[in-house]
Amino acid sequence: MAQVKNKQVILKDYVTGFPKESDMNIVDSTITLKIPEGSNDLVLVKNLYLSCDPYMRGLMNKPQGTASPLAYSPQSAIAGCGVLKVLESGHKGYKEGDLVWGFTKWEEYSLIPAAQILFKIEHTDVPLSYYTGILGMPGMTAYAGFFEVGSPKKGENVFVSAASGAVGQLVGQFAKLHGCYVVGSAGTKEKVDLLKNKFGYDEAFNYKEEPDLNAALKRYFPEGIDIYYENVGGKTLDAVLLNMKLNGRIPVCGMISQYNLTQHEGVTNLAHLVYKRIRMQGFVVGDFYHLYAKFLEYVLPYIREGKVVYVEDIAEGLEKGPAALVGLFSGQNVGKQVLVVARE
Amino acid sequence: MAQVKNKQVILKDYVTGFPKESDMNIVDSTITLKIPEGSNDLVLVKNLYLSCDPYMRGLMNKPQGTASPLAYSPQSAIAGCGVLKVLESGHKGYKEGDLVWGFTKWEEYSLIPAAQILFKIEHTDVPLSYYTGILGMPGMTAYAGFFEVGSPKKGENVFVSAASGAVGQLVGQFAKLHGCYVVGSAGTKEKVDLLKNKFGYDEAFNYKEEPDLNAALKRYFPEGIDIYYENVGGKTLDAVLLNMKLNGRIPVCGMISQYNLTQHEGVTNLAHLVYKRIRMQGFVVGDFYHLYAKFLEYVLPYIREGKVVYVEDIAEGLEKGPAALVGLFSGQNVGKQVLVVARE
Repeated sequence: MAQVKNKQVILKDYVTGFPKESDMNIVDSTITLKIPEGSNDLVLVKNLYLSCDPYMRGLMNKPQGTASPLAYSPQSAIAGCGVLKVLESGHKGYKEGDLVWGFTKWEEYSLIPAAQILFKIEHTDVPLSYYTGILGMPGMTAYAGFFEVGSPKKGENVFVSAASGAVGQLVGQFAKLHGCYVVGSAGTKEKVDLLKNKFGYDEAFNYKEEPDLNAALKRYFPEGIDIYYENVGGKTLDAVLLNMKLNGRIPVCGMISQYNLTQHEGVTNLAHLVYKRIRMQGFVVGDFYHLYAKFLEYVLPYIREGKVVYVEDIAEGLEKGPAALVGLFSGQNVGKQVLVVARE
Repeated sequence: MAQVKNKQVILKDYVTGFPKESDMNIVDSTITLKIPEGSNDLVLVKNLYLSCDPYMRGLMNKPQGTASPLAYSPQSAIAGCGVLKVLESGHKGYKEGDLVWGFTKWEEYSLIPAAQILFKIEHTDVPLSYYTGILGMPGMTAYAGFFEVGSPKKGENVFVSAASGAVGQLVGQFAKLHGCYVVGSAGTKEKVDLLKNKFGYDEAFNYKEEPDLNAALKRYFPEGIDIYYENVGGKTLDAVLLNMKLNGRIPVCGMISQYNLTQHEGVTNLAHLVYKRIRMQGFVVGDFYHLYAKFLEYVLPYIREGKVVYVEDIAEGLEKGPAALVGLFSGQNVGKQVLVVARE
């Protein structure tokens, strides 16, 4: 059986602190484009679009105790979510030509267990890359975190950090559609402009230009915050706790400011959870995929009508993968960071 | 109209850091034992038992922003919850001789708005002082925090800090009655013995003798903690976060370790809220008094059958008030700290 070249992004070794491009390598391996005889749970896919996500940083750590089943190994290809085209399927649920999204490796072709496929892609009138973002994990994360964990009510005050990111840009738009007042923070003027002019945030600010985050939040929320959609942790969370309203909610989606620190920042204002009866709740999107059909029903019409927009930051080619992934942690990306492996 | 002497515990000035006995004074004021003409919302009471509670520390601070309506003023009597006997009532809901519990001042006699009375005392076959503890605010706090906020399931693993205190001793007993495995921490050998031998905790440890709280928790919870009933905050919370199970819950009742610190300890492990999908929820007992009748139905039979016990630390006389209150913050009290003003 003929083998073909299969370019990969591999992790050189476990990572400590901020990841660097040089922590990864581009290598040429080979793959046989054929499902092994008798495998009825394997699917051979061509990887089209790969998603660059902050949670991937955790998979680069040397495992301590029970490792995530996704944790990376040195000298192996890293993995993540992506949009894939089925070349051949041993599993009867899929067939050649199917477009799907789910977990794959960062390489041109992958042989993956069918269980790693999350959903078949049924709607192709929207960009396929959207299934790494607004119609994929980040979209469901925004939807579930805001509506299911945040329990928003019309007219409530919502604050979103990392607000122009893959998830944040959607939380803001969903909150506006729900009748909330929404303020977002981001780290550059360009992103702040996007928040106000493209995503419809009522207000937005550059957290790097606010020496006193508490004062900034008091300015934008003189009556306090009902829902803080938490993406960053650390100092921002500490300032938010001082500005929450009674019975506020903090869906905790992530804490990107902390992922690369060997010593995490301390959060000192947690006693406000009691004073203000706040519910702070971590969640992972994997617990909410039963709502995916409902989510598509909600979001697809808005996309088609242009009432919800989605900004992507597209990197072309696996060679650009390390830089694209590493850039997330210094906020290089503007919008959802996508890596294109192949367009079809 | 004759006036009588009315001994009071007054706050000298706002407090910073750890409160001291010398922050308070015992003074003799006078009071007219008569409701003013035409007052239909005032009640004249004799204070019998006063409750010493950690939240009172917050009321000693110089108010910043919106003050609690209960906040203390310099040179005035401090206030808190207590068991009171009605001497005369302008409000038609109460009459001479009624026993009630609610908010009053730390003095012999008080003229209070009827709205400060929380409940009439209907059951007097149990010690009256219990209405400052197991049948009062701490009891409802334990009940609501464990059952309503904690959502316990039979067989779950429960950890309680400040476990021999007014609230903690009950959380442990309620958890055992609910079929949970329960471990408590406290700060002396005597308290640890109480936890194991009197309150039925499965295990207990002295946190002051554990140089590595994370290791201690791993020893007692090799499979992790489902519910952490949070009373202390700070380092304990940080170690607990490392040991929570998936979908764990942290009802936040208080953070006594932080109340006297001008610079709070930083909690660094909050990212575990995401990894483990933890719900951490502050609550105040005042939101749950609609459950008081249900709570009495639950707990009174257990008290009468001796299946729930309650340990009180009784200080006699208003003169002992400052020491009793201050002692809470160094863990001097063993069990619920009560101050007796008069027994009838």
